[in-house]
Amino acid sequence: MERERFSAFVFLSSDAHQSEYVPEHWKGREWISGFDGSAGIAVVTIKGAALWTDSRYFLAAESQLRDTEFVLMREKIAGTPSIFEWLGEQLENEQNKVVGIDGNTISYGLADVFMKSLDVYGISVRFDTDPLDSIWKNRPSIPSNEIRRHPEEFCGENSLSKIDRIRQNLKDLRCEGMLVSSLDDISWTLNLRGDDIHCTPVFVSYLFIGKKHVVLFVNDEKISADVENYLQTINVCVAPYNSIDTYFSKVETKYPVLLDPKETSYRVYNALRDREISIISGESPIPRMKAIKNSTESKGFKKAMVKDGVALVKFLKWLRPAVEAGGQTELSVSDKLEHLRSENKNYVGLSFDTIAGYESHGAIVHYEADATSDAALLPKGFLLLDSGAQYQDGTTDITRTIPLGPLTDEQKKIYTLVLRSHIRLEMAKFPEFAAGTQIDAICREPLWEYGLNFLHGTGHGVGSFLSVHEGPHQIRMEYVKTPLVAGMTVTDEPGIYVEGKFGVRIENTLLIKRYKETDFGNFLQMEPLTLCPIDVEPIVLELMEPKEIKWLNNYHKLVEEKLSPYLNTEEKMWLKAATRPI
Amino acid sequence: MERERFSAFVFLSSDAHQSEYVPEHWKGREWISGFDGSAGIAVVTIKGAALWTDSRYFLAAESQLRDTEFVLMREKIAGTPSIFEWLGEQLENEQNKVVGIDGNTISYGLADVFMKSLDVYGISVRFDTDPLDSIWKNRPSIPSNEIRRHPEEFCGENSLSKIDRIRQNLKDLRCEGMLVSSLDDISWTLNLRGDDIHCTPVFVSYLFIGKKHVVLFVNDEKISADVENYLQTINVCVAPYNSIDTYFSKVETKYPVLLDPKETSYRVYNALRDREISIISGESPIPRMKAIKNSTESKGFKKAMVKDGVALVKFLKWLRPAVEAGGQTELSVSDKLEHLRSENKNYVGLSFDTIAGYESHGAIVHYEADATSDAALLPKGFLLLDSGAQYQDGTTDITRTIPLGPLTDEQKKIYTLVLRSHIRLEMAKFPEFAAGTQIDAICREPLWEYGLNFLHGTGHGVGSFLSVHEGPHQIRMEYVKTPLVAGMTVTDEPGIYVEGKFGVRIENTLLIKRYKETDFGNFLQMEPLTLCPIDVEPIVLELMEPKEIKWLNNYHKLVEEKLSPYLNTEEKMWLKAATRPI
Repeated sequence: MERERFSAFVFLSSDAHQSEYVPEHWKGREWISGFDGSAGIAVVTIKGAALWTDSRYFLAAESQLRDTEFVLMREKIAGTPSIFEWLGEQLENEQNKVVGIDGNTISYGLADVFMKSLDVYGISVRFDTDPLDSIWKNRPSIPSNEIRRHPEEFCGENSLSKIDRIRQNLKDLRCEGMLVSSLDDISWTLNLRGDDIHCTPVFVSYLFIGKKHVVLFVNDEKISADVENYLQTINVCVAPYNSIDTYFSKVETKYPVLLDPKETSYRVYNALRDREISIISGESPIPRMKAIKNSTESKGFKKAMVKDGVALVKFLKWLRPAVEAGGQTELSVSDKLEHLRSENKNYVGLSFDTIAGYESHGAIVHYEADATSDAALLPKGFLLLDSGAQYQDGTTDITRTIPLGPLTDEQKKIYTLVLRSHIRLEMAKFPEFAAGTQIDAICREPLWEYGLNFLHGTGHGVGSFLSVHEGPHQIRMEYVKTPLVAGMTVTDEPGIYVEGKFGVRIENTLLIKRYKETDFGNFLQMEPLTLCPIDVEPIVLELMEPKEIKWLNNYHKLVEEKLSPYLNTEEKMWLKAATRPI
Repeated sequence: MERERFSAFVFLSSDAHQSEYVPEHWKGREWISGFDGSAGIAVVTIKGAALWTDSRYFLAAESQLRDTEFVLMREKIAGTPSIFEWLGEQLENEQNKVVGIDGNTISYGLADVFMKSLDVYGISVRFDTDPLDSIWKNRPSIPSNEIRRHPEEFCGENSLSKIDRIRQNLKDLRCEGMLVSSLDDISWTLNLRGDDIHCTPVFVSYLFIGKKHVVLFVNDEKISADVENYLQTINVCVAPYNSIDTYFSKVETKYPVLLDPKETSYRVYNALRDREISIISGESPIPRMKAIKNSTESKGFKKAMVKDGVALVKFLKWLRPAVEAGGQTELSVSDKLEHLRSENKNYVGLSFDTIAGYESHGAIVHYEADATSDAALLPKGFLLLDSGAQYQDGTTDITRTIPLGPLTDEQKKIYTLVLRSHIRLEMAKFPEFAAGTQIDAICREPLWEYGLNFLHGTGHGVGSFLSVHEGPHQIRMEYVKTPLVAGMTVTDEPGIYVEGKFGVRIENTLLIKRYKETDFGNFLQMEPLTLCPIDVEPIVLELMEPKEIKWLNNYHKLVEEKLSPYLNTEEKMWLKAATRPI
């Protein structure tokens, strides 16, 4: 720090592509602080060190930061200074107030916030140094896994057509090129998949879509002969991943280039700016295009959901007897489910780490069992199980709250209300182009009536063999402006969490489709993609409305019809009972 | 224009205070173009002239602009250029591209948009000239009506306390002073009322709330001895209205002053900027304070609603026989209702121009009958009646859709669905601090189910003997971020408009109040303030849910209990029948 004349370094939690899951190479914040939560910012000055994280991680951070120099800063708690205020005070008497941030790990949108906020304290920011380069021994390298093609039988639209449509969109934005940093957008555009990111079949790269040429910045070792051939047929040139800095000095790309300030790193932004390329900052058009599934993708989702549903039925049939027999834990049943899923055709892996929370663990929204916390399952109470898989045909995301035996009255009541809340969104009709925020209350109203609420989102998009959390649309209380249109996938996952006792969440993945066209415009509705019984045992019938009961019975009829053909006689009988009308 | 070296003038529809209703003095756009709609912008260049307005006014503008030089520009219709694009083209070959806008009639927030958008075309904007000053003969002067006190028995909090609270809020915003331009904010702060604005008891003025002193910029002729005395007791100095330009050069007010860019004119902003006063641009804290009614104001609302309800019951009892007898029109029944209201204690006037739309006129959302359009009422179909009054105790706003005789099945169905939609919001429970957009779907859901929707807001705040449309909170699909809290008034006014046939809207004014506190936070609910029967004849019972019927019966019981004591025997009998349980 002293050699480079920095007075502080800031370590963020992102990789160079603003991915949700970060490759080991970019886990610098974890390496320097020891804190391994998904959200957190570490700051180191000559005098001290501190780490900011949110309430989900207070307990974990406390224990992981014990016996380190890092002071824990609890975000949104009264008295906690902002990073900017803290740095302002720490560097008050310094002469040379320069903070270093690795320009690879910060979006240029956020970089702007840092520069403006620190400027108030007379502090400047430099983004040209990765301090970890010299001090992190045995730093894991950037992933170098092989890329593979994602055949058109799964993706339904060839890459040339996608690039054409992107160029059309760019024209409307008065741009003639764009640089894509988001890994799932690159995978979608090129119909390629990879293995570089945990639970997500994408690969580390940048993509430049120019007026006449397309360049994929990716390391050679990842490109097989087959993929190389394929890229040639779609006129995509390949350049080394790191040449992104120098590439633009060699070409005559002076026309306006679109960059998304939320997904593009400061380093890339700066590389373009240095070449005097005209930069237009704006929302990338790809997420909105990718969010609307074509008919091949919808059909793929439905195939994946049948396979996933069959695995889940086998699992559910097995679960209660296994728990009654004893010896099962949160981790053991997660493994069992993973094993059943892995037997399915075109199975690639999990789409996220399974959340299996028994009783009080179910009330921890981001719970992930480990060897220490792994709870034994008893034949009573609730197991909250949120899981999903990656199939080549589609990605799944489902939550069921499973009674393992007798329940309390409170558990039954909360279960029934969460189920009502879930059903309300499944039944919702709404105008085309309504944003998620504008329909969110339809889901929450039955909970609000009882003074209940949940603080997470109600739903998110799901990728087509891509990220399980896919934007840009969402259904949530906080304002998200992306309009909902037919062809989008979205989850429906209300939950209620009673601290120290239990949690209930019920989630299906849905497809948004046309409802009707009237003099008042086009209206949309939901179609459930997920096929898995919702346990009816805990339901308090008096709390349900007749139309909600009708929906549930219809859904169960559908589940039975779709899954039975793939089950043996015993499983069929189990499913028939599980989906009986109430 | 040539003398002053301007190449174009833009005439907006606002006064110097961004009022909803504009005094005659500031109706320059109407004077120059002849178009009298509430929204529109006229632009005049050496070569031509054009007027932009929205779809509500296309028909009116077409007829009013006929035989003038003004070309009608239909906003949001494909092919219509923006004002900026049009000016860019019109002035393309001009050497001196300067557009003039009267800095009095444009907020400095909007001025910024004009400057930035015209800069693209190399056009600069000057705000220092009011072109109408020299050419508008017999221009009406700025209103000079007398100001009167609004006693504490109605407003419930003295002005010193309000100013104290404002100063507290300013401190949180790191400001030590603010300049208030919004007339209802000034009236609320000082507990004064006026007669300068149509249907709104406010007076033309500015208010500076400084660190230690408060200055009211208002013309002398408006101040009676009583008000002068009162202003002295609350330490408010008086300065001439026009001295706002020069005042700040005389005082040492160099501390940060808050200006709201949406309510402050460019002229005032510029006057402060010229004195090198540090300006903080931000949302004024007064609208949020004013929106939360204290207990005196809530009680006042309830008194006003009883009086208003009594007038409405007398009107409704009279209406159908009168229509059957013949000779009644939209205007005649509006006059009858106004007369009945005017007999009430503390009645001051209407709170907006009555909307009485018979059958197809009811489908025109902003319909206002005039001598030409005034329709005869027949004993069949719907009369949509949206009306309200100003009482010293409170402001009222109510819509009823009244069957004058036989209805079509379509009318009955739409009436029932709009009523369900209305009741849903009355019944809603929701978390404290939810914004209106976050609960809007609760109201619209029953309409969406049938492929119906309305394009206006669902609800707005109502002033306490102030503006009938009061912010900053609203319930609507478009994002409005102001959180809802207990003590706010809000209307509940869903509607469906079947073009060329009829319109249905049902509106009560509600009070937001505490529902319950649970482990999940504070929850809110609605209490109806408006007391007037909702006609049950058109209701299609099979379309209603039991809980909605229960709500309606309970509401009618309340209406009967509250109003009966003020009615004669015949009126009581009429009300008993009108509020019978269904």
